[in-house]
Amino acid sequence: MIRFFEKDPYAPIQYTYEVSKILYHKRSEFQDIMVFENPHFGKILVLDGVVQITEKDELFYHEMLTHVVMCSHPEPKKVVVIGGGDGGTVREVLKHKSVEKVYFIEIDEDVIKVSQKYFPRVACGITDKRVQIKCMDGAEFVKRRSADIDLVIVDSTDIIGFAKSLFTKKFFHSVKNCLTRDGMYVSLSESLHFHKDIVIGVQETLRSVFPIVDLYTAPIATYAGNWWTFSIGSKQLDPREIRTKHKIRCRYYSDEIHSNAFLPRSMYQRLMTRKLDW
Amino acid sequence: MIRFFEKDPYAPIQYTYEVSKILYHKRSEFQDIMVFENPHFGKILVLDGVVQITEKDELFYHEMLTHVVMCSHPEPKKVVVIGGGDGGTVREVLKHKSVEKVYFIEIDEDVIKVSQKYFPRVACGITDKRVQIKCMDGAEFVKRRSADIDLVIVDSTDIIGFAKSLFTKKFFHSVKNCLTRDGMYVSLSESLHFHKDIVIGVQETLRSVFPIVDLYTAPIATYAGNWWTFSIGSKQLDPREIRTKHKIRCRYYSDEIHSNAFLPRSMYQRLMTRKLDW
Repeated sequence: MIRFFEKDPYAPIQYTYEVSKILYHKRSEFQDIMVFENPHFGKILVLDGVVQITEKDELFYHEMLTHVVMCSHPEPKKVVVIGGGDGGTVREVLKHKSVEKVYFIEIDEDVIKVSQKYFPRVACGITDKRVQIKCMDGAEFVKRRSADIDLVIVDSTDIIGFAKSLFTKKFFHSVKNCLTRDGMYVSLSESLHFHKDIVIGVQETLRSVFPIVDLYTAPIATYAGNWWTFSIGSKQLDPREIRTKHKIRCRYYSDEIHSNAFLPRSMYQRLMTRKLDW
Repeated sequence: MIRFFEKDPYAPIQYTYEVSKILYHKRSEFQDIMVFENPHFGKILVLDGVVQITEKDELFYHEMLTHVVMCSHPEPKKVVVIGGGDGGTVREVLKHKSVEKVYFIEIDEDVIKVSQKYFPRVACGITDKRVQIKCMDGAEFVKRRSADIDLVIVDSTDIIGFAKSLFTKKFFHSVKNCLTRDGMYVSLSESLHFHKDIVIGVQETLRSVFPIVDLYTAPIATYAGNWWTFSIGSKQLDPREIRTKHKIRCRYYSDEIHSNAFLPRSMYQRLMTRKLDW
């Protein structure tokens, strides 16, 4: 049996997957890209040795990254997706009828091409006429943008690695400047089990820029530590409140999941004052 | 570097841990018992090749297994703990001031001894004078008991394996018969990510015996699939409601965690009618 040993130096448990068949394996200008087939998860996309999505469970990550801010915004029209070359986040954004324009900013064109070939049900939204693809650095895109964006969604690789420029105070300032009055930002922020200090770090940096900052989680078995966090920076809207007028069709996300996903206020308080003793 | 490869034939991801030192490794009458030291998790207890507890994160499992039923019961006095030889569940049960008697039924005495030696902060409650240890089959214990027990907590190894006699309709009937009018039962029921059919199976069997059956989850990084489920059978009380009068001190569990942990009703409905398409 061929096995794939995930190469995540920051995870205290190493995850290993059975490989039925390697479908693609090449280095792009930016990273090592691999696609393989697994008996349980179906096709799996790996970047620089770390699992990004699997056919079976990508829905949990994509729905939870996207719909919490999308549904707490009353009417998102212009949305920026940074990263997420597989297209899963774009697919979810397009479920919202209010959306008129999606700026899809992925630095690595090869990831988009590979996903369109091997993950058609994930990449399906990329060719939608509301989507404008730009293969460039997301930090550069937001820096030059005027304040007309409703939501910025960062769907990057792990924070430790070449995505780290997307988690600086400077970047968060650029994001804030390109947002409308009701604007919000969301990104992954690693595992509460394995990377508590990183979670706190992202939250602290966001709090130095945005007046409202919050944290929610989702269970994702294929990301190390699994108790995956998402960090929100908001200019004035409380992201715990649902404001959308449109019904969207999801496989995991719902109004109740939205509310339950946020950290209880007391636990959030203990996290940020470093009083959680685990 | 020495590594421990978890031997869970039902998990589609294999978990591997770094081993700093093996502290104990022997076969008991019932199973293979190992304790090793890991740089991140501290000491880890392994039974038949599967991780049972780690010093760092055992609190999530033990608090969530115990306090949901304990806090939704108005005044639990007599509690049966089946399995859980490490003592963690007994420790949590004893946090409730109403408790007068804990019947601690662990088939394998060696697990208790190993835990007392290597996990003193987990096993600390075992010597409490309210605790009566019986090294016997839990199914035998409940079969012969009259209806004076408030709560039965099953803290077994994985359902597939020698614990399977604790998940039969016959066993659930014995449990129901030994419970008082307000009595409740709780047990682990595997991962919603990896073992959805087992979760449904346990729920269906419980529903053939108890009038009220429910399901809640907790994020546990060291159990395969991590999105860990717990199944409740109740004679008349709704376990989503908190009724305890006593404050207990926890590191993860809280009133809000209690409420948020239960599956949203609509998702539960879709699970049980096999309409969840993941």
